[in-house]
Amino acid sequence: MKKQSFLFIILAVIFTVQLNAQNQRGPRVVSPEIHPDNKVTFRLLAPDATKVTLSGNWMPGWGTQVEMAKGDSGIWSATTEVLAPEFYTYYFNVNGVKTLDVQNVQVVRDGTRYENFVIVPGAASDVYAVKDVPHGMISKVWYPSPTLNKTRRMYIYTPPGYDGSKEKYPVLYLLHGAGGDEDAWTTLGRTPYILDNLIAAGKAKPMIVVMTNGNAWSSAAPGEELKTGAAPDYAQMARGGFEKSLVADVIPFVEKNYRVLTDKNNRAIAGLSMGGMHTQNISNANPGMFGYIGVMSMGLMNNTRFGNYNEEEHKKQLKALQDSGVKLYWIACGKEDFLIESVNNLRKLYDGMGFKYEYLETTGGHTWTNWRIYLAELAPKLFK
Amino acid sequence: MKKQSFLFIILAVIFTVQLNAQNQRGPRVVSPEIHPDNKVTFRLLAPDATKVTLSGNWMPGWGTQVEMAKGDSGIWSATTEVLAPEFYTYYFNVNGVKTLDVQNVQVVRDGTRYENFVIVPGAASDVYAVKDVPHGMISKVWYPSPTLNKTRRMYIYTPPGYDGSKEKYPVLYLLHGAGGDEDAWTTLGRTPYILDNLIAAGKAKPMIVVMTNGNAWSSAAPGEELKTGAAPDYAQMARGGFEKSLVADVIPFVEKNYRVLTDKNNRAIAGLSMGGMHTQNISNANPGMFGYIGVMSMGLMNNTRFGNYNEEEHKKQLKALQDSGVKLYWIACGKEDFLIESVNNLRKLYDGMGFKYEYLETTGGHTWTNWRIYLAELAPKLFK
Repeated sequence: MKKQSFLFIILAVIFTVQLNAQNQRGPRVVSPEIHPDNKVTFRLLAPDATKVTLSGNWMPGWGTQVEMAKGDSGIWSATTEVLAPEFYTYYFNVNGVKTLDVQNVQVVRDGTRYENFVIVPGAASDVYAVKDVPHGMISKVWYPSPTLNKTRRMYIYTPPGYDGSKEKYPVLYLLHGAGGDEDAWTTLGRTPYILDNLIAAGKAKPMIVVMTNGNAWSSAAPGEELKTGAAPDYAQMARGGFEKSLVADVIPFVEKNYRVLTDKNNRAIAGLSMGGMHTQNISNANPGMFGYIGVMSMGLMNNTRFGNYNEEEHKKQLKALQDSGVKLYWIACGKEDFLIESVNNLRKLYDGMGFKYEYLETTGGHTWTNWRIYLAELAPKLFK
Repeated sequence: MKKQSFLFIILAVIFTVQLNAQNQRGPRVVSPEIHPDNKVTFRLLAPDATKVTLSGNWMPGWGTQVEMAKGDSGIWSATTEVLAPEFYTYYFNVNGVKTLDVQNVQVVRDGTRYENFVIVPGAASDVYAVKDVPHGMISKVWYPSPTLNKTRRMYIYTPPGYDGSKEKYPVLYLLHGAGGDEDAWTTLGRTPYILDNLIAAGKAKPMIVVMTNGNAWSSAAPGEELKTGAAPDYAQMARGGFEKSLVADVIPFVEKNYRVLTDKNNRAIAGLSMGGMHTQNISNANPGMFGYIGVMSMGLMNNTRFGNYNEEEHKKQLKALQDSGVKLYWIACGKEDFLIESVNNLRKLYDGMGFKYEYLETTGGHTWTNWRIYLAELAPKLFK
């Protein structure tokens, strides 16, 4: 059977599929269009809409809506000012209803919300791009958690060359924030591309990155969690369930099933927001376990309104951690982060007791823009 | 640092995030709501919309829109008739613009289109559910393709117990159709859940499933393809580029990097539509390579308008395939599939020459509903 026979049939099928994919009739619409000067035009075909707005994370304030203008053929459009090179998320509102850009297949989930994304090219966003470099592998791994009494899921990045080599690798345990799940660092965080690009450039050491689900009551990301009929066990959070399970379940699983180096100088932990709290809880309670510790957008949680914070106990833990020989304790936060004061308080505590750390303060707030930057800053510092 | 201190802070953060996740103010909206009788109500808060419709793949005809009714608080709703247990996809149109159900985190990509999904429970859809059974692992694997001169991506399902065992497993190469990519069988096709559930029930043998990208000109799914600056090479399709690369690049990579059984009775290939054509091309050209062959929704492509189909050459290939000792040649198609005539022609050719096959004819057309059913029917027949 000659393959040539099928060329036109296949092309016809693909053409049909792509027409369907457009999912609308009418003029051809291009969106987003990145202009040479890095202004971006967004477009939506909506002849029967009476109001269409654009919201993007480059706008000041969460949920800002910019009105789009209706053109002759029912295409609404809006063009931004020049945008700095970055990974941006955005969506439309059509008569008050949130809508994706049907022209842009690049979609990312943030908790339960879906948004489009676009990478404005340039030096600062280059590390987020899918480039022609050796790629690591993302695996969605289910593992037993006796501590939390369920099977749970995590994502594991293995670096380029892992398969087919006999080498052992260092491991970074990378934790998400509240509202996130085991998928967040891979999709919103661009972890596989950041690592691929940094490793290819010789800036980061090849490493395994383990991205867990920090919500102790659930097994996996929403929509993929087990339907066991069991009620959520939020109390696990108060009991430090996730923190215990990382140490008792996750690390042993990884060290059994992957070729990893198991000394503390080849084991790192980092997390953002709630994951920054998890990182503090886990590293404070387990001195000598991690040589590299990264706390992103999370500080000292000592608000006595909410419980029984004990500064002496905290200092005792930190002293033990310090004595264990931490190679790097790294803190990062945005100037406009709503938790910046807690970060300043944490730094004061550390400064007061001579607990050494590096600190990166960026512009911006409690955002994935910052957390991507932090990962790209932190990864090159690990395992050196 | 006592973990209890943080409970209320965390809960407050989560609450905020979940409010954000709703991404809209106003009354609480539940959608979809599956009633005890398997009618389903869909709802959308859209006080400023003037027309909202529901489209779902249970409706007759592609793109059918059912008008939803506006209630007092600006919530539009529509309730279906009783739906048979199935995995359904759907979306809304708001003033003519396609919109996801913001209340439903379950979203799937079909080519470049995003739609919500809902599983109506029952015996027929049970195999698609995420259940409390041992889970296999999905890995997104980049591999070198010298044949296509690029690095390409595939998804690989390894069965429960693969990690930590020394056993070797049979392999199914599972191919998507035009408009699809390496992601399609995992997300739209529910392959990991179908396999997990069939293996747990003792109905299918534990196997590795390799899901490639059949678009020879691309490296990976849209939005994740390499930005190399190279032009698409559609001519690879006419030259059978994908078919050659599966044999020359994919199978050797899998057999080198995974613990697999490499005799033909432990090697299966199956595909839908374009992937059914790939399956025919590959198995016809490589007698003795596959003991199990599955052709879904694709038949005899002998339309002489489009090329130089040669029946004698085809029969010669089939004779060699037959002589190689195929354990199962399996064909499936829907009665309303636009390719059913080509499938009937293929069966006539096979019948005429005594080429043995099993045939499953279902209701319905050229749809993922059928392809999920076909995978769940085929997997138990493999490697027995």
